[in-house]
Amino acid sequence: MIVIGAGGSAAAYELIQLGYDVTILEAQDHVGGHVLTVRGGVTTEEHGKGVQECTWDEGVWWDAGPSRVPFFHRAFFHYCQQLGIPLIDHKNLNLNGWAYAEGIEGSLDGTRMRVRELQADMGGYTSSLLAKAAESSTIDDELSADDLEMLIDYLVSWGMISSDDLNYTGTSRRGYAVPPDTQSSGEVADPFPLEDLLPFASAIMGSNSGYLAATASPTWQTTMVKCADGIGQLFDSGFREFFGERLMLNSEVTEINNTDVGVSVVYLNRETGEEEQISADYCVCNIPLSVLIKLNTNFSREFTEAMRSVPYAMSLRMGMQFNQRFWETEDWIYGGQSFSSIGELGILGYPDDNYNAEKGALLAMYNFGNNSARVSSLSYEERAELALDYGSRIHPQMREHYHSAFSVAWHLMPYSLGAWPSYTEEVREQVMPTLQEPEGNVYLVGEHLSHVNSWMEGAFQSAWMQIPKLHQRVMGS
Amino acid sequence: MIVIGAGGSAAAYELIQLGYDVTILEAQDHVGGHVLTVRGGVTTEEHGKGVQECTWDEGVWWDAGPSRVPFFHRAFFHYCQQLGIPLIDHKNLNLNGWAYAEGIEGSLDGTRMRVRELQADMGGYTSSLLAKAAESSTIDDELSADDLEMLIDYLVSWGMISSDDLNYTGTSRRGYAVPPDTQSSGEVADPFPLEDLLPFASAIMGSNSGYLAATASPTWQTTMVKCADGIGQLFDSGFREFFGERLMLNSEVTEINNTDVGVSVVYLNRETGEEEQISADYCVCNIPLSVLIKLNTNFSREFTEAMRSVPYAMSLRMGMQFNQRFWETEDWIYGGQSFSSIGELGILGYPDDNYNAEKGALLAMYNFGNNSARVSSLSYEERAELALDYGSRIHPQMREHYHSAFSVAWHLMPYSLGAWPSYTEEVREQVMPTLQEPEGNVYLVGEHLSHVNSWMEGAFQSAWMQIPKLHQRVMGS
Repeated sequence: MIVIGAGGSAAAYELIQLGYDVTILEAQDHVGGHVLTVRGGVTTEEHGKGVQECTWDEGVWWDAGPSRVPFFHRAFFHYCQQLGIPLIDHKNLNLNGWAYAEGIEGSLDGTRMRVRELQADMGGYTSSLLAKAAESSTIDDELSADDLEMLIDYLVSWGMISSDDLNYTGTSRRGYAVPPDTQSSGEVADPFPLEDLLPFASAIMGSNSGYLAATASPTWQTTMVKCADGIGQLFDSGFREFFGERLMLNSEVTEINNTDVGVSVVYLNRETGEEEQISADYCVCNIPLSVLIKLNTNFSREFTEAMRSVPYAMSLRMGMQFNQRFWETEDWIYGGQSFSSIGELGILGYPDDNYNAEKGALLAMYNFGNNSARVSSLSYEERAELALDYGSRIHPQMREHYHSAFSVAWHLMPYSLGAWPSYTEEVREQVMPTLQEPEGNVYLVGEHLSHVNSWMEGAFQSAWMQIPKLHQRVMGS
Repeated sequence: MIVIGAGGSAAAYELIQLGYDVTILEAQDHVGGHVLTVRGGVTTEEHGKGVQECTWDEGVWWDAGPSRVPFFHRAFFHYCQQLGIPLIDHKNLNLNGWAYAEGIEGSLDGTRMRVRELQADMGGYTSSLLAKAAESSTIDDELSADDLEMLIDYLVSWGMISSDDLNYTGTSRRGYAVPPDTQSSGEVADPFPLEDLLPFASAIMGSNSGYLAATASPTWQTTMVKCADGIGQLFDSGFREFFGERLMLNSEVTEINNTDVGVSVVYLNRETGEEEQISADYCVCNIPLSVLIKLNTNFSREFTEAMRSVPYAMSLRMGMQFNQRFWETEDWIYGGQSFSSIGELGILGYPDDNYNAEKGALLAMYNFGNNSARVSSLSYEERAELALDYGSRIHPQMREHYHSAFSVAWHLMPYSLGAWPSYTEEVREQVMPTLQEPEGNVYLVGEHLSHVNSWMEGAFQSAWMQIPKLHQRVMGS
C-alpha cells in the first residue's frame, strides 16, 4: 500500500494495524501537512513570498493550522489515547478578554471593553426590556400568567436586574473598577448606555456570534481541548514515531496512475532532486483536492470533474512571539480570546498554558476570504506590521514587547493551496458520492471527504470510511 | 516572631523575606490549614465522626477546600510565580455539562439536559419575544427606530432566531442528536417547549446564576486557574519547602498571652503529648476566629467581643474516585461542571486535567448552610451513599464505576470550625477595624480580615496589610 501525504496519518495507521505493508510518501520534511506547530527553526515558503524562518525562543509555540478540538470529535480523542498524547484545555471564551469595535456610531467607537462588560450590559438591558414587556403583558405570545411570572423571575437572575423595578443599573459581575481588598469591597463602574452599546454589540456579534451568542457554536464551544505542547505532538511525534521506517519524507508525488495490477506513483526526491517511481496494489491519497488536481493522473473524466468542482477557501493565520506576557501581567488574561470587528484582524488568541512564564506567542491575526486575499498579498514583514497596527488598538503594549511574527496564508502554501474546501451543500451532494468511491485502485482520504470538513476529525473519519472498504476488497479478492 | 497556623503562609513568607527569625507553629501534619489536596493516604477527623482515610489510587486528587482562583486575585499569582508553581485551567462553564432539575412543574421534571441546550433555548425564546415586541414597538423604552432595528439584529444573532419571522425553532448550536460524519451533516433535536423549559430554567438558575447568567460572577468566571496537581502544591510543597526548619508541625496552640516584653504561646506537641511554651517579640496569628475564640488568651474584652461577633458558615464538599472516567468516555465532558436544583447536591465538578486517563475524582457534592447541616450529621459512609443517590440522577453510571468517597464538613473540622466567616456588611464594618489592629503584640492574619474573605487571596492580602505595619513598628522601636 502507498499512502500519499502523511496528513493522512489515520489511514496509514489503520492500514498498518491491519498488517499491510505500507509506504508513506510525504512531500514535506514533517508529518501533518496542514497540521503544523510553529516553534523556533520551523520554515515555510509560500508561493511568491520566499522562505520564512521562525526565530522564536525555546518553549514558545503556536499552532498555525488546526489546533482546538470540540468534544464530539471522537476520532481525535481516540488517536490521542492510542498514542499517549496529553491534552490540555483550549478556551474560546474568557470573560476577561477584550472586545474591540471601530467604524461604528456612538461613543464606543474605537474602544475596547471586557467581554464580561459587553455580556453583562447587553444581558441586563435586554432582560429589563423583556421583563417590563412581560409585566405589562405586551409581548406577543400565549404564555400564561404563571409563565410570565416565571419568565420575569428568570430574567431577573439572568440579566442581573432589579426585582423591584426591573431596571438594569449595572452589577459587580461587570467586574471591578477597583478590586476588593482588606479595606473595601471594591468599586463597580456604571454600565454603558444602551444606545452606545448597541452599535458596538452588533459590530462584535457580526463575525464573532459563534463564540458570543447565547450558546456557542458546537465546534467553538467555550472550552475545547488541544494537544499539550502543540498539535505537532500528535502528528510529527506520535504518528511519526509509529510510522518509523515506513515514512519517506521530502517525497513529492507528481504522478498517480492506475495500472492493470495496481498503482504506479512517481515522486520527486527533494533531497536528491531525482524523480523516482514506485508501484503498489493500492494507493490511499490524502493530497488536498486543490493540489491533487494539478498532478498527472489517469483518473476518469467524471472523477477529475468532481475534484475540480470543489473550490478552496482562503485563510491566513499569524502567530507572534512577545518577550513578556503583558496580557497576563497587565491585562490579567489567562488564555482564551479577544474579539474585534476588524475583518483583517479577526480574533486574538492567548496561550492556554505555561501561565506565569516570561514569554509566549499570541494568535495575532486570523482572517478569511477577501480579508485573507488582501493581507496575504503583503510580504511576511508587511503582514506583521499590519497585525501590530491592528493589535495595538486592543493591546497598546504590543510593540514594546514584540519579538517576531510568523504568518501562514494557507492558500499560498504549495502543498495546501487553500485552507479547506469551501463546500456548499449543493457541491457537496454533487461530488462527494464520486470522490468517496475508489478511482480504480486509488482511494481518497482527507477532511474534504467528510461533512466535518476543515477539521482533523473529518480526515480521521474519511480513513474510518475508506480503509474498511479497501480492506474488504482485498479480503474478498 | 511566632506565626501560628501555616495557612498563614504569606505572613511567614514575608517575615522571612524581611530577615526576621520566624517560628511557625502548625497544629496539623501538613501546611495549608483549610487548603487541602486530598489523595490516597490523606486522613481527616471531624468532630464526632472518627477518622477518615482516603484510599484513592495514585495520581487521583481533588481539592477539598480552596482550589480555583479568579484572575483578579493577584497575590495568588504572585506567590505561584515566586515559588515556581505551575498553573492549569479551571473551568466553571462547560456547555457540554449537564443541568438537572427536579420537583418542578412540567415535562422536564427529573430530567437532565446539556447546559448548551438550556442556554440556546432560553436565549432563543427570550430573544424571539423581545425582538417581536421591539418590532411592534410595544417595549417600554425610548429607543429610536434605528436603535430598535439594531436591537433586533443583535437578538437575531444572539438568540439564533430567524431574521424573517423572528421565531426560535432550534439551532445546531444546541448540539447534535447525531453528530456529522462522512455521510451526513448531522441531526439536530427540536428545542424544548418554552412552557416546560421555564420551570426548569428557574430551578437551575436559583442556586447557579453565578455561573449561568449573562455574565458569570467575577469570582466564578467561566475560566479560572488552579495549581497543577492540586492546591497543595503551593502550600504543602512550595511554602513548606521555603519554610524548612522554621516549621513545627503537630504543634497545637492552646494559649496566647501578651506579656510586658512580647508574647507567650503555649502549645501541645501532638507527637509527644507534652505541653510546651515559647516566647517571642511578636506573634502573627492565622487561626480562624471560630477556633481562636476558644483558646486561652489575655486579649482585651473589646477584641474578644469583636472575634466573637463573627459567625462562621457551614459547608460540605465531597470528592469521589471512579475507576473509569465515564463522564469523558460516555458523556464527552472534559472538565467543568454540571448544575442541579438539588440543594444538598449542588454542583458536580469534573477533573480539568489528565484527560483520557483511566481514573479520576469528581467533586460529587458541594453544599452550604442548612443543606450542609443535614448532610454533615450523617456518617462518612451515609454521606457518600446520599451523594451517589443524587449523582446517579445525572450520571446513571455512577455506582457502576464507584471506587470511594472522601467528604469534608468544614464546620466539623477541629482546626476550622466553619467554612468561612459569614459576614454581613454590618458585622464587617463593626469588627474589622478592631481585628485589623494589633492586639498588643499579636497581629491577626487570615481571609477573615479581608473583604475577599473565604478566598486564599483574602489571607494573602491580610498579610500584605499586617506585615508592613508590624515591620514599621519594629523598625521604629
